[in-house]
Amino acid sequence: MTPRPPERTARPVRQSGARLIALPSFAAATGALHVFDQGGPVPFAARRAFYITGMPAGANRGGHAHKICEQFLVCLHGSLSVTVDDGEKRSEFRLDAPGTGLYLPAMTWVEFKAEAADSVCLVLASHPYDEDDYIRDRDAFHPAAAAASEGRDSGR
Amino acid sequence: MTPRPPERTARPVRQSGARLIALPSFAAATGALHVFDQGGPVPFAARRAFYITGMPAGANRGGHAHKICEQFLVCLHGSLSVTVDDGEKRSEFRLDAPGTGLYLPAMTWVEFKAEAADSVCLVLASHPYDEDDYIRDRDAFHPAAAAASEGRDSGR
Repeated sequence: MTPRPPERTARPVRQSGARLIALPSFAAATGALHVFDQGGPVPFAARRAFYITGMPAGANRGGHAHKICEQFLVCLHGSLSVTVDDGEKRSEFRLDAPGTGLYLPAMTWVEFKAEAADSVCLVLASHPYDEDDYIRDRDAFHPAAAAASEGRDSGR
Repeated sequence: MTPRPPERTARPVRQSGARLIALPSFAAATGALHVFDQGGPVPFAARRAFYITGMPAGANRGGHAHKICEQFLVCLHGSLSVTVDDGEKRSEFRLDAPGTGLYLPAMTWVEFKAEAADSVCLVLASHPYDEDDYIRDRDAFHPAAAAASEGRDSGR
């Protein structure tokens, strides 16, 4: 199976909802191995990775949505609380086990907060960085999400 | 720039040597962001990610080489000492800052040890998992590395 090519559509798309996904994990006395690979449980191939280290307790990050980029957030040290909004409903998740991460479809507003000192958040993304893919204005997000939802629901 | 397609050659290849590479990093009061993206300083596009968490101090991992897969190792919490062998020389590296990782060309034998409790190692790889790409027998590695080196040096 080859990874999907980057999809560039004229209109933001919204897929099935944000959800926790357990990665294949292999525990040993020398540490636990967790794998993100194509053909695994996360429904995209990673094309970009970034991580945030040294988050102090209470630190807030995120505060944006992506038009087409899908992401997978996982907490590799400490713990995070994550709030997501798909334009219709708001959900909260706690990430404190490195084997389980949060899949974020495109068109999901995300904010997260470190619950423990020195928290580490790894993000795997379906697309290379593209500033045009970001929606950073919360007021613009809801109309965009509604338009994406209408496009999806009508099958256009 | 599009990521390189997977390269499948009949013969292991060896590129320029293992080396430390600093990722683009963006420090803030809420944590430091570090980015691995195509077109960045690491000379491959990530196609797979895996990470090892909860490594106790003194834990040893690795102990293999890859025929064609390139990797980038970074320590996201704690610290690691990494020993690499390209078939001709052995080098040691210490990873204890999340913004700088170790690029491993194909045909590099790697072993690493956690120097601090609860160390976390993230690995980004140029290829999906393929058991046939692993060399797990140290005795078989040196002849294979020598053959790869001869192939490279003669331009075949």
